[in-house]
Amino acid sequence: MRITVLNGPNLNLLGTREPDQYGTATLAEVESLVRVEADHLGIELEWRQSNHEGALIDAIHELPGRADALLLNAAGYTHTSVAIRDALAAVRIPFVEVHLSNVFAREEFRHRSLMADLAIGVIAGFGPRSYLLGLRALHASRADV
Amino acid sequence: MRITVLNGPNLNLLGTREPDQYGTATLAEVESLVRVEADHLGIELEWRQSNHEGALIDAIHELPGRADALLLNAAGYTHTSVAIRDALAAVRIPFVEVHLSNVFAREEFRHRSLMADLAIGVIAGFGPRSYLLGLRALHASRADV
Amino acid sequence: MRITVLNGPNLNLLGTREPDQYGTATLAEVESLVRVEADHLGIELEWRQSNHEGALIDAIHELPGRADALLLNAAGYTHTSVAIRDALAAVRIPFVEVHLSNVFAREEFRHRSLMADLAIGVIAGFGPRSYLLGLRALHASRADV
Amino acid sequence: MRITVLNGPNLNLLGTREPDQYGTATLAEVESLVRVEADHLGIELEWRQSNHEGALIDAIHELPGRADALLLNAAGYTHTSVAIRDALAAVRIPFVEVHLSNVFAREEFRHRSLMADLAIGVIAGFGPRSYLLGLRALHASRADV
Amino acid sequence: MRITVLNGPNLNLLGTREPDQYGTATLAEVESLVRVEADHLGIELEWRQSNHEGALIDAIHELPGRADALLLNAAGYTHTSVAIRDALAAVRIPFVEVHLSNVFAREEFRHRSLMADLAIGVIAGFGPRSYLLGLRALHASRADV
Amino acid sequence: MRITVLNGPNLNLLGTREPDQYGTATLAEVESLVRVEADHLGIELEWRQSNHEGALIDAIHELPGRADALLLNAAGYTHTSVAIRDALAAVRIPFVEVHLSNVFAREEFRHRSLMADLAIGVIAGFGPRSYLLGLRALHASRADV
Amino acid sequence: MRITVLNGPNLNLLGTREPDQYGTATLAEVESLVRVEADHLGIELEWRQSNHEGALIDAIHELPGRADALLLNAAGYTHTSVAIRDALAAVRIPFVEVHLSNVFAREEFRHRSLMADLAIGVIAGFGPRSYLLGLRALHASRADV
Amino acid sequence: MRITVLNGPNLNLLGTREPDQYGTATLAEVESLVRVEADHLGIELEWRQSNHEGALIDAIHELPGRADALLLNAAGYTHTSVAIRDALAAVRIPFVEVHLSNVFAREEFRHRSLMADLAIGVIAGFGPRSYLLGLRALHASRADV
Amino acid sequence: MRITVLNGPNLNLLGTREPDQYGTATLAEVESLVRVEADHLGIELEWRQSNHEGALIDAIHELPGRADALLLNAAGYTHTSVAIRDALAAVRIPFVEVHLSNVFAREEFRHRSLMADLAIGVIAGFGPRSYLLGLRALHASRADV
Amino acid sequence: MRITVLNGPNLNLLGTREPDQYGTATLAEVESLVRVEADHLGIELEWRQSNHEGALIDAIHELPGRADALLLNAAGYTHTSVAIRDALAAVRIPFVEVHLSNVFAREEFRHRSLMADLAIGVIAGFGPRSYLLGLRALHASRADV
Amino acid sequence: MRITVLNGPNLNLLGTREPDQYGTATLAEVESLVRVEADHLGIELEWRQSNHEGALIDAIHELPGRADALLLNAAGYTHTSVAIRDALAAVRIPFVEVHLSNVFAREEFRHRSLMADLAIGVIAGFGPRSYLLGLRALHASRADV
Amino acid sequence: MRITVLNGPNLNLLGTREPDQYGTATLAEVESLVRVEADHLGIELEWRQSNHEGALIDAIHELPGRADALLLNAAGYTHTSVAIRDALAAVRIPFVEVHLSNVFAREEFRHRSLMADLAIGVIAGFGPRSYLLGLRALHASRADV
Repeated sequence: MRITVLNGPNLNLLGTREPDQYGTATLAEVESLVRVEADHLGIELEWRQSNHEGALIDAIHELPGRADALLLNAAGYTHTSVAIRDALAAVRIPFVEVHLSNVFAREEFRHRSLMADLAIGVIAGFGPRSYLLGLRALHASRADV
Repeated sequence: MRITVLNGPNLNLLGTREPDQYGTATLAEVESLVRVEADHLGIELEWRQSNHEGALIDAIHELPGRADALLLNAAGYTHTSVAIRDALAAVRIPFVEVHLSNVFAREEFRHRSLMADLAIGVIAGFGPRSYLLGLRALHASRADV
Repeated sequence: MRITVLNGPNLNLLGTREPDQYGTATLAEVESLVRVEADHLGIELEWRQSNHEGALIDAIHELPGRADALLLNAAGYTHTSVAIRDALAAVRIPFVEVHLSNVFAREEFRHRSLMADLAIGVIAGFGPRSYLLGLRALHASRADV
Repeated sequence: MRITVLNGPNLNLLGTREPDQYGTATLAEVESLVRVEADHLGIELEWRQSNHEGALIDAIHELPGRADALLLNAAGYTHTSVAIRDALAAVRIPFVEVHLSNVFAREEFRHRSLMADLAIGVIAGFGPRSYLLGLRALHASRADV
Repeated sequence: MRITVLNGPNLNLLGTREPDQYGTATLAEVESLVRVEADHLGIELEWRQSNHEGALIDAIHELPGRADALLLNAAGYTHTSVAIRDALAAVRIPFVEVHLSNVFAREEFRHRSLMADLAIGVIAGFGPRSYLLGLRALHASRADV
Repeated sequence: MRITVLNGPNLNLLGTREPDQYGTATLAEVESLVRVEADHLGIELEWRQSNHEGALIDAIHELPGRADALLLNAAGYTHTSVAIRDALAAVRIPFVEVHLSNVFAREEFRHRSLMADLAIGVIAGFGPRSYLLGLRALHASRADV
Repeated sequence: MRITVLNGPNLNLLGTREPDQYGTATLAEVESLVRVEADHLGIELEWRQSNHEGALIDAIHELPGRADALLLNAAGYTHTSVAIRDALAAVRIPFVEVHLSNVFAREEFRHRSLMADLAIGVIAGFGPRSYLLGLRALHASRADV
Repeated sequence: MRITVLNGPNLNLLGTREPDQYGTATLAEVESLVRVEADHLGIELEWRQSNHEGALIDAIHELPGRADALLLNAAGYTHTSVAIRDALAAVRIPFVEVHLSNVFAREEFRHRSLMADLAIGVIAGFGPRSYLLGLRALHASRADV
Repeated sequence: MRITVLNGPNLNLLGTREPDQYGTATLAEVESLVRVEADHLGIELEWRQSNHEGALIDAIHELPGRADALLLNAAGYTHTSVAIRDALAAVRIPFVEVHLSNVFAREEFRHRSLMADLAIGVIAGFGPRSYLLGLRALHASRADV
Repeated sequence: MRITVLNGPNLNLLGTREPDQYGTATLAEVESLVRVEADHLGIELEWRQSNHEGALIDAIHELPGRADALLLNAAGYTHTSVAIRDALAAVRIPFVEVHLSNVFAREEFRHRSLMADLAIGVIAGFGPRSYLLGLRALHASRADV
Repeated sequence: MRITVLNGPNLNLLGTREPDQYGTATLAEVESLVRVEADHLGIELEWRQSNHEGALIDAIHELPGRADALLLNAAGYTHTSVAIRDALAAVRIPFVEVHLSNVFAREEFRHRSLMADLAIGVIAGFGPRSYLLGLRALHASRADV
Repeated sequence: MRITVLNGPNLNLLGTREPDQYGTATLAEVESLVRVEADHLGIELEWRQSNHEGALIDAIHELPGRADALLLNAAGYTHTSVAIRDALAAVRIPFVEVHLSNVFAREEFRHRSLMADLAIGVIAGFGPRSYLLGLRALHASRADV
């Protein structure tokens, strides 16, 4: 099984960015954790990050034929991007939406996701572990089929 | 580690209730799955269900000294009960909010949770697996301390 | 044909409660009227009332195999209970929503029903006669099949 | 007892119009059904239909001295016409609002009626039977006086 | 100076319609009062009434070349008719909006007029005298030019 | 008959203030016009103006025993002052609300009056003539009693 | 192919009405333009206009068996008429909604159409050419089938 | 004079629950304080608490003939329960609404009470003393009669 | 202990102003009642009233060093004055907000207080007794320290 | 005449993306169709597409001196991009907004365009033909000048 | 160049009032700072402060012929006073709106200014330096002419 | 002191873009003006502009260790970009938000900034001088530390 992990804006700053909110692990460290779990589950993993909405759309367009599923943390674009939503609807790849922080305990504008209704499900609030849980959820959802 | 799983209204009908939305596994079957995982993780599990808002509040009140964490699926009360929210705030037990269905892909009134901001995190949309992921999340969150 | 009539909170006070709004007939008197009509139509009638949201949910859960249709006056819970709505959706029994008073001529918050869209139809404003009309509607809807 | 049944816009198309929503009976067939019931109840019936808001207002103005009660299906004007509401308030004739479909299960803009608060009561969702139930309700309401 | 007085829906019932709200004078009596004042001011008066939105629009279309100004009581259409508003904008005749009752002391939906911003001004709440005041205002506004 | 005319904030600048909106007549000139009309109608007139909300409230308190009616242009306070509203309700003097400009053709926040529902009626948009019309309306309303 | 063009309220004033907004061509001139194009495309054209909401509904009812498609400019009724919407849904004729002016550049209340979601598509802002483009769109949509 | 004090959900946890918000006194200690005051005022006191909405409704139903007035702290149900509101309206017993915390300084959803408009008055923010003040208010209100 | 009682606009009319709403006691009589209670509690009392928002702000500014606490009935300014709110925040004196009438049973705009969240607590609906209860609350709150 | 066609995010996927919604023609095929029409009309055509909001802005900036008009399908950015709106306002090039699907028959958030009020007009719902119609509209609008 | 600085309610408490929010400099100290800068720029400065809305309006009325520009900190009245807005519009003096604190980082109701759209510009968040920057901005804006 | 000036979308068109709104100075000319002031204040200046949201985020990420403060004109992204807001929160660099035009006098959607609450302060409406004032504000804020 091939899974792409797509990280949105500002996640490259992980570890230094608002550690109270997001923890002290860097994105590279999160990637390492996720790769260990992926290996354990027999998943082939691709890891990408961009601060550019258009680049994220491009990356989603490249998924068909390259990945079986998507683990998506669109970060700030989660709440504002109709274009990313449309990209997800266009490629019709199964995906799970993850967030490091509990977005429901933060500002009102973070409570609305423009793409969550297209996802298999949503996992939020567990720090880097949100990714591990999302990976498991994707892995299992495939077994279900 | 002791964890109580608290199931809200209508979950006793699982398996027969709207199978397109909630799947065909019964609540007892979900419980079995979760118990297997709990055993695997060395978690002592208590499993409860009620259709009564007051009974759920009572059950939350009994948690201190009896459980280290709560896995909560408040179902329909998630969106309307200030009283359950207050109970959770009162006992201050760490909890994860889980939903079988992807509530964000359903009616508008299911997008708002009155208790999610008090939770460690939220997991929605993975059917019975939402519970397994929630259990893992609670187990791991303890290891974090 | 077996029909359960389920009465929600405060309906036990009928006759003494706000007689300008709800009339002077007691709930027992309304039941008698409805039983006469039921006998006339060859309907086997079950009559229940509870002030407890959870008890109403339990009662709805018991309907399959026991009743062919439901006549529901959820009273105050009509406007606030997602949990009762979910119970109705779960058991998928045909039901008619009735109200003694014309809820559309009262406070704004009584204009919205959380369950009316799941009902066959709605009858409001005719006092105890709302029940009789509802019974006829259910009886006839069966003949339609 | 004399009752006028007033049918609003597009009801002349009944039977051909959106049969999934409104059934296959024509307006003439509905009229026949209602006339049978009216005869049975000893009611003198007048049956009118117009697609013109102004014609409906004119018809309401003609009611005093001609009818004792009104059975009103204002159809699409139910949700937009302050002028019809004012006509009903002006002639002060007792009336019942009926709808063929369950308006509460349809678009948001059909949930609000501009005249329901002036009615004795509302009946919606039972197809042509909504008229029969409404006739009975009017007939009975008179007996109450 | 030629002035047309255009009366909207239900005003033909004046005197019998909700006398607490609108007084006991009939529309013919109001017309007489207004004609006396018009004669006094040397105004040639045309008096029209219709319950039909379309007829009111037609009447407005006929104004150019026939009247120098319009005294308009659009009644219930005041709050809902974009089409009458467009007619007024199209013929560009100066007009005053009048209401018998104080619409600002009534239901919320009567507080908004879809045409008041196109009027010279608004007069509401003085019963038939609203017309007399409106006539004077139109008469004077001409003198201003 | 004794009538007090109460002018609110910024009306002292009349004539120099936004002449496109309010005309070129000064407040003194408007007063002269109104006094002529008052003499003509046999009305004893008191003319006051203040920019202070509290002073306007004080002035309203002094009305009983001093004036039979009030002609009120509360200007900017019309849209924001609950306190002036309460003063008007407290002294229970009949009053007419007038505005020089057509407030309904201006900013949204000028469409709502916090006191119009307590008035006999409202006159807006006729420049200084709004006062003359208001005076006539008050004079006539007394004759009605 | 037979196409009916249905023009709503105030369009009879075209050319004289707000020329800045709607241009100087009269409705007859627009009709001529459209007829030329219709002839060119081999379309049999019917051209109608009414200021009456009810007459427009009647006209829509007459479409089946008389026209293959509808070109609709409901003008002011576009934004307020549930009844016209229902007529369109009832006859299920394919139609294109056209507007002379760019309604999205005008008042907020013109941004919402109660019927656009039932249309094949919407064309707005091109003056009389909106009709020509609409005709082409209808002609082509048929070729698609 | 007989007064019932009715305590809603989570108040049984008082003293341990969010002490920053609600203080360290237990509900039993509050009861003792209130009983001392009641004795002092010659009031016969009944003290009840439940976490169940239905049980609170039942308790309200039992009030007539058993208590002359009610001191109500409906806690979380204050903001969501139409059913409790209806119970209060049904038994028509005079009551005072009390809150330990200043609900107006907390979350937006605590600013609205569904029952306050039926109460004699509201007292909030004084901790256990809110009860003592409420008791005095009820005692005095009786003396007023 | 020194307490200032600050009365807002229109309270000087107490006894004559809307007696159904506010009772027949004059402000001087209320002051007498409060002074008796103050003497009883050993409180040094200052009593002030103004209809001027600015004067109330000035009075609040004078409180430090002159009073230990404030009993505030800001009347109509309660719902509109950010400036009085800022004054209260600036002097940081403990205060209780009181209202004679039950503001929650009146117009919607009286349900919101711009200063209640800064208060120790709120007491509304008990007529002059609201002041006595407020005085006790302030007196006791001091003993708590 | 030179016209640039600017295609926004996800349009590169046309033909594979949600064919029910957008049809099976690829963007290259649409381009071919449009080029044929452009040749026919004597228009020099530039065809561009980008998923990047910034790249679309850059492309708009390059228009002056390079194109006489713009045919714009901003896709998902239509509903969220103030920046693209500002770019259009900055270069002041005449443009037509086109959409393949009938955006008014889709999600609520697609009903609002942040740039439509700056356009000559809007064409939506005709699939690739929306482009052809838009091209004609631009071509004709030039002829008008 | 003559500039008046007008300070609104509670600014007289500067230095003692909420020092975390507003700093420790007194209003007199701020005035000194501003006077130094004014001297430096060759500006003749008038410095005024009032807690009274009416007094601020009076002060604005006195500006013509006395000042060339206004530096305005209307404090709490910024968000509620239509009357001050009208005064500014009436005297048509160029002005800059300043705030000590960053109002956009505070309560929602401080985000809206009723007068900012009439200002040259707005400066907020720099403490006393907001005044200095505003002074410079006014000075420069004059040079621009 | 090192300050980066970051200019958002469309600012590269300054001078040609909507000169009524933004003036005739080009961005290069504004840069020159700002550099002169920066030299004068001993500030080392970096000047950047991009139309790409992602590029602006990248630029913000590069600030730590390179600049001591940021002068930000995010232009159209000010009102829509959660991602830029998150970048600013992540790098925690002190910044001032500036706008050339008075955004509060323009469209409603420009009144809300998604980043202003994170800024030291906001300056809007002074054309290029907004930058000079912002530079001074940043320079001074450092002196404050």
